[in-house]
Amino acid sequence: MDKLSQKRCVPCEGGVQPLKGKELHDYQLQLEREAPGWSVIDDVRLHKKFKFINFKGALEFVNRVGKIAEEENHHPDINFGWGYAEITLSTHAIGGLSENDFVLAAKISHAG
Amino acid sequence: MDKLSQKRCVPCEGGVQPLKGKELHDYQLQLEREAPGWSVIDDVRLHKKFKFINFKGALEFVNRVGKIAEEENHHPDINFGWGYAEITLSTHAIGGLSENDFVLAAKISHAG
Repeated sequence: MDKLSQKRCVPCEGGVQPLKGKELHDYQLQLEREAPGWSVIDDVRLHKKFKFINFKGALEFVNRVGKIAEEENHHPDINFGWGYAEITLSTHAIGGLSENDFVLAAKISHAG
Repeated sequence: MDKLSQKRCVPCEGGVQPLKGKELHDYQLQLEREAPGWSVIDDVRLHKKFKFINFKGALEFVNRVGKIAEEENHHPDINFGWGYAEITLSTHAIGGLSENDFVLAAKISHAG
C-alpha cells in the first residue's frame, strides 16, 4: 500500500462519494500509523492541533502548510495564534472526507 | 485625539483593568470611524471577517497581520481558509479588551 504522504491530491471526479464505513476506517488506521494524532470528526472532517513555542513558530508552520495546500490544490481551514495551530480538513465539494484529505493530513504532519 | 492606527501597543502594566462601559464604547466608536466593521463580542474581544478571492490572498493577508503582530508584540487569533480570514483580538493577560486591541485592529484593517 502506497504511503499517504507520497500520494498526490487529485481533482474530485463527478459522482465521487464521501468515504464512510470500513473504507473510512481503513484510511483512518493508515493515517494513524503514518502520522498519528489526527481525529475524524462526525465522519466528515479531519482535525489536529499542533503546538509551538510562540506566534512566529505557528505562523512559519502555517506557511509550510499553505505551500503544501497550493501544491496539492487542496486547502485546509486553519485556526492559529500564539503557540498553536489547528488544522481542519474536509472535501467541501462532496460534503465529507476523500482520500485527498488523508493525503494532505499526512503531508502536513511531516511539515509539523 | 490620536488615530488608533498611529498609536503603538504598549506592555500591560500591573493593575490594568479591561475596558468597560463608556470607555469601551468610546474606543468602539473611534475604531468604527477609522476602521469600520469590527464587532465587540461579550465586551471581551474584537472580531472581524475579511474576504479574499482565494486561499493565497487570505494567506498573504495573514502574513501581513503576523508582521504587525510581531512589531507590536500583541498577537491575534486567526482563523482562515479559502477566501476568508477571521481575526479575533483580546488582551489575555487582563481577560478582556485594552487599548492595544483597538490599536491592533486599526492597523490590521489598514493591511486588509
